[in-house]
This record gives sequence, structure tokens and C-alpha cells, in this order.
Amino acid sequence: MAGTVFFSVSMSLDGFIAPESPDELMGKQWMELQQWVFRQRFFRENLKLGMGGEEGRDNDIVRETFERTGASVLGKRTFDAGEDAWPEDPPFHTPVFVVTHHKRDPWERLGGTTFHFVNDGIESALDRAREAAGDLDVRIAGGAETIVQYLNAGLIDEFHIALSPVLFGSGIRLFEHVDASRMALTQIDSEPSPSTTHLRYTVQSR
Amino acid sequence: MAGTVFFSVSMSLDGFIAPESPDELMGKQWMELQQWVFRQRFFRENLKLGMGGEEGRDNDIVRETFERTGASVLGKRTFDAGEDAWPEDPPFHTPVFVVTHHKRDPWERLGGTTFHFVNDGIESALDRAREAAGDLDVRIAGGAETIVQYLNAGLIDEFHIALSPVLFGSGIRLFEHVDASRMALTQIDSEPSPSTTHLRYTVQSR
Repeated sequence: MAGTVFFSVSMSLDGFIAPESPDELMGKQWMELQQWVFRQRFFRENLKLGMGGEEGRDNDIVRETFERTGASVLGKRTFDAGEDAWPEDPPFHTPVFVVTHHKRDPWERLGGTTFHFVNDGIESALDRAREAAGDLDVRIAGGAETIVQYLNAGLIDEFHIALSPVLFGSGIRLFEHVDASRMALTQIDSEPSPSTTHLRYTVQSR
Repeated sequence: MAGTVFFSVSMSLDGFIAPESPDELMGKQWMELQQWVFRQRFFRENLKLGMGGEEGRDNDIVRETFERTGASVLGKRTFDAGEDAWPEDPPFHTPVFVVTHHKRDPWERLGGTTFHFVNDGIESALDRAREAAGDLDVRIAGGAETIVQYLNAGLIDEFHIALSPVLFGSGIRLFEHVDASRMALTQIDSEPSPSTTHLRYTVQSR
């Protein structure tokens, strides 16, 4: 029995999840968007950012998101950006399926993360991720374009957005190319935390 | 002592507050965006939509937003759209200042709404609205372009967004032209309701 297919992102109030260019990754707005997660103990330990960090509901949400995930799917550009940035034991600790035209052998890293390069489309990548995940869930881990491809194909069951009190003004919009006429959302949860609001939705086709 | 300057809008999860064209005003997504407010008793009575309607926290929010408002400011296009659509006693029941290049005498309607046409800019319109509002607050009542002009000028103190579980895909974005580098937001409240999430922010310049 396959698990749930979901995504989980931090989004600015004006709908952006990333700066336009990697040069801006240390920009003020980007840091403000991510600060709720960077402060959490589980996140810091998982990315080897040093000891400490907050515990509480936000930390639980980060940990629960990690623990439910049996495999992740990534777009090529997100993988490329991460390839240089992740530590030797990347924060996934599961199989990761990269949707790409680039042919490459599986890349096994420390800590249980192995990147598999899938050349025959998003459905194939998801099939392989489901199989690898077993009873756990599959996370579509970005970027925006890949998430929306899965949304438009009707392959996302639910998603979590941490909506943060920051405006980007420009950057990469999560829902830029969404085919809104084909899906309806049901809000299943809205949970305030000190620095963000956790919103959860299920997706229905229509 | 002047009151607070605020706006209050219903926004889709992908950041839109209106369809691109008035033809789409009865579209499925637009109705879904507005349904939380159309169902409320106070809103229905105020727009003469017939008896009945829900009571509860959402209704209280609609009523409180009305009761705090001593004067409103509108952009020209929002006024033009409303001029045909509002009943003889428009839902404001206060002075309304329309920012426009069009010269026109004040237009007094039933029920206490008088539209004043202001030809010398947004600050002048706000000054007049503050004066008319007395101890009550001034609502920048739309559209998106007018709201963002006031935001970018540092003239908004706080705002309320009812974020609804609907995707538009296209339309008029609330924050399209926001100068994000010049303002910081503080989330002061996040309140789930059955069909939307009420988010409140204060605005600080930086």
C-alpha cells in the first residue's frame, strides 16, 4: 500500500519560495523566510549546523515531516544547487529520485541518502519513489516547477505551507504555472506558530 | 488623534484578490474566494442580499471590520466597478475618498455613503479620510494597485488577509508591485476558521 504524496515548503506572503538567483540566497528576505526552520533543533542536527536550537511545536513539525518521508523526488535544478551545498551526509537519509534528462549512475552518500537519476519522466520517478518508500510517504522536495508539474498531473495528495510574514517582491513563485481550473483544495489545518503559520491542504481533482 | 490605516482583503493561496476581468466575477474560483464572507449575516444585511446568513467568529470579523472604519479610500477602477454594482445605499455608510484624475462633485448616496473625488494624490486622499474618520480607522478598500501604492509609501499600519483554500492561476495579484525591500511585517494573529484563515500583520518601514 503506497503512502501519501506530499510537499512541504516555506512560502512568503506574496507567494515566493526562493530568490530568483542563488546569489540572493543569503538575502534578508530569504533568511526571514527560512528562519523559523533554521532555528529548530531537529533541522540543525540534521544539517550538522551545530548544537542547540529550539524545541517545541515548530521543531515537532520539522521532525514529523522528516519521519514520514520514505523517499523524496527532486527536480534537476534543485539537485544541482544542493549537490554543492549539502554535507557528505545530505539531510534526506532516504533514497532520492532526481527527475532529469542527464544520465548518471546512482550516487550513494553517507547516512543513507542515495540519489537516483530518472530519465523517463515525473510519473516514473514517483513510481520508483513510492516503491522505495514502502509504507512511508513520498515528498516532492522541490523546486517549484517540479512541485507544480506533480500538482498539475493530479499526483499530489496533500501539502504543507509554512506561510511567513515576509514579502519578496520578486523571486520564484510556488504556484506560477499551476493549472488552477483542474484542482480544488480543502484546508485541513491552520496552525499559528510564533514566526509562521502552518497551513495544510488536501488536493482534489475537478 | 488619527486612527489606524489598514486594509482587509480575501486572497487566494496563490496571491490573487480578483479575476483579471469583470467577466470572470462569477467564476468558480472567485466565488470560492468570497464565499466565507458572502455567507455571513452582517455582510448579507449590509449589502441587502436577503435575510439569514451565518453568525459566529467569521461574522464577528466582518462586523468588526465595518465598525472600526470611519472612512474608506478607493482607487478609481474599484469605484468604477462598484458604481454600477452597489445598491442605492452602498455598503460603506461613511465618507469614501476616490483617488482619481477625474473631477467630479461629491456624490451623496443613501445610508450615509458620500463619495468624494480627490485629484491631488494618495496622501491628500488619506489626509481627508483621516479627518473624516475622526477617532475611527481608515480602510484602504482597494483595488490591489491602490493598496500597494499606500504600502510602498509607508502609509499602511496594519492589514488583514483572509487566505482562502483556492488557487486562481491568473488574475490580479495583491502584492504584484510591492517594494518589498522597504518594509518588514510582523505577524500579530493567525486565526483559522472553517473556510479561510485570518492573518493579521503590522507593517514597519526599514
